[in-house]
Amino acid sequence: MTTLQQILGTELPLIQAPMAGAQASAMAIAVCNEGALGSLPCAMLGPDAMRSELAAIRAGTDKPFNVNFFAHTPPTPDEAREAAWRAALAPYYAEFGIDPAGIPTGPGRNPFSAEVADLLAEFKPPVVSFHFGLPPESLLAKVRGWGAKVLVSATTVDEALWLEAKGVDAVIAQGLEAGGHRGHFLSHDLTKQLGTFALLPQLVRALKVPVIAAGGIADADGVAAAMALGAAGVQVGTAYLLTPEAMTSALHRAALKSEAARHTALTNLFTGRPARGIVNRVMRELGPIGPAPEFPLATSGIAPLRAKAEAQGSGDFSPLWSGQNATGCREVSSAEVTRALAKGFR
Amino acid sequence: MTTLQQILGTELPLIQAPMAGAQASAMAIAVCNEGALGSLPCAMLGPDAMRSELAAIRAGTDKPFNVNFFAHTPPTPDEAREAAWRAALAPYYAEFGIDPAGIPTGPGRNPFSAEVADLLAEFKPPVVSFHFGLPPESLLAKVRGWGAKVLVSATTVDEALWLEAKGVDAVIAQGLEAGGHRGHFLSHDLTKQLGTFALLPQLVRALKVPVIAAGGIADADGVAAAMALGAAGVQVGTAYLLTPEAMTSALHRAALKSEAARHTALTNLFTGRPARGIVNRVMRELGPIGPAPEFPLATSGIAPLRAKAEAQGSGDFSPLWSGQNATGCREVSSAEVTRALAKGFR
Repeated sequence: MTTLQQILGTELPLIQAPMAGAQASAMAIAVCNEGALGSLPCAMLGPDAMRSELAAIRAGTDKPFNVNFFAHTPPTPDEAREAAWRAALAPYYAEFGIDPAGIPTGPGRNPFSAEVADLLAEFKPPVVSFHFGLPPESLLAKVRGWGAKVLVSATTVDEALWLEAKGVDAVIAQGLEAGGHRGHFLSHDLTKQLGTFALLPQLVRALKVPVIAAGGIADADGVAAAMALGAAGVQVGTAYLLTPEAMTSALHRAALKSEAARHTALTNLFTGRPARGIVNRVMRELGPIGPAPEFPLATSGIAPLRAKAEAQGSGDFSPLWSGQNATGCREVSSAEVTRALAKGFR
Repeated sequence: MTTLQQILGTELPLIQAPMAGAQASAMAIAVCNEGALGSLPCAMLGPDAMRSELAAIRAGTDKPFNVNFFAHTPPTPDEAREAAWRAALAPYYAEFGIDPAGIPTGPGRNPFSAEVADLLAEFKPPVVSFHFGLPPESLLAKVRGWGAKVLVSATTVDEALWLEAKGVDAVIAQGLEAGGHRGHFLSHDLTKQLGTFALLPQLVRALKVPVIAAGGIADADGVAAAMALGAAGVQVGTAYLLTPEAMTSALHRAALKSEAARHTALTNLFTGRPARGIVNRVMRELGPIGPAPEFPLATSGIAPLRAKAEAQGSGDFSPLWSGQNATGCREVSSAEVTRALAKGFR
């Protein structure tokens, strides 16, 4: 059987999870140079930024790396839902003296596209990973055109079987403990989401392709546990959030280091899709799953509140993404986090 | 440091999870005789049944065993909530031709009491475990009186620290994957519930007493993974549900063996407290968390529907308790399940 290292071209079966907004090329380079797979999250990058980040990676390492995209279908804006969202946020606009008329609507994150595929082709990233399913076949063909391996997150057995049938090279088993956006794409019923201890063995049993464990893995012991459950490799994100290479804000770093990190929840308030972050004021007051429009349309309504609150030193309206297990967060280099995790392959 | 085996008096740091309604002395005896800790769930047993089951265990094994109780405070019945519950169930009563006036109200499960403690004292069970926190100090003193070790489930760091401060001998880290009733008792906010991969390392880090992993552990690989995460031992329930010693109904067995077992949810419809079971008709139609009165008062309203449906060969109104990982369910003896799990201690 082909090992995950053979598929990825890496020394270690370890992937640094792409974390849009919290890291870019610097972390990816540091991780790649330790023999693991560094990732560049591209969901929030425009073409110029994407090009300069890719150039930085090519200059910083000769090792394989991963670029990550969201594969959602942009929704049709729904005036009633947008109005309900603005109404829910109205008291906060008043509190912060924000004129609601001045807030634009529109998308916060773009899906993978032909333009992006053509840009990527200049750099030929060896691995491309997707969240929220797969892009259309025609776009996937472009990625296959330069020989990239394709990884996608699955959150249920059904999703994993669907992805395997589409020919992905490996599946990321995203357990419910994972931070950031849930990757589900066949059903929006959150009761179908499984903890890593339940999801991983079921995918290992159901699939022929390698299964990468994600969600709750914070240190070498977590890596060893995932491998014991049959994983071919692991993907780790939260443990990298306090490194100097992370772009994690000071507010977010403080939350991760505090007891607040013990209580995360899935929330749709920041983008419109359920994503796991540390519970803060807006999540408490509107409920973590609130009246937000469809992904990614929630972003524009909450953005000015986040900006105003952060300017006052408050994370009350910020997405403080974190997995359920922040015990691996240490203020050391991304290289050191990688080396420590690698000790779990024993 | 004292090992879990020293505390339990067993050869293996393995506990067969107490499963009220699904097993009794026969399973406990079989497990004890394999060197693990068998459990007798007592929450649904009256005094006579409890006495005969305890006598059966004493006759069937000379090994240590566990008796398990719910430690809830009986709620004050709330007429409005009971009325809302009956209203939600009214269409089903009509469908099955049940006269709602003939359905009694009242508790479905009794908490640990002085009478029960005195009955237990005749049998001196070496281990007593509780769910939903601890009983009052005076009752705990009775248990301590015959030298029993005390184990309690924790679902958050706060609960685990609270239990350690009360002097429990070991804490069961009940991950979100676990089947049956959630054991939370300090907060009813379900977003605080953690997957095993996140809960277990946090409790291991926070506590001095041994931590027993529960939730999603289905086979030897799962045991090895839990031990890698720092567990002192494991508790496994779902994997025993197809054994001949289990009293699992034919309907429940069929569900566990089918693809339906891939989709469980936390539901309050059967007792009033969130418990994990395979999704069935009543959970789909009322929502898994529906308008049920407080635990255990929901039981009486749904009981006649369960009885009528089961008589027609339907599990539409039955609690089909299961963890999120039913892959360990095999139609072999409880002794064989125990031996297979024991291979995970490697």
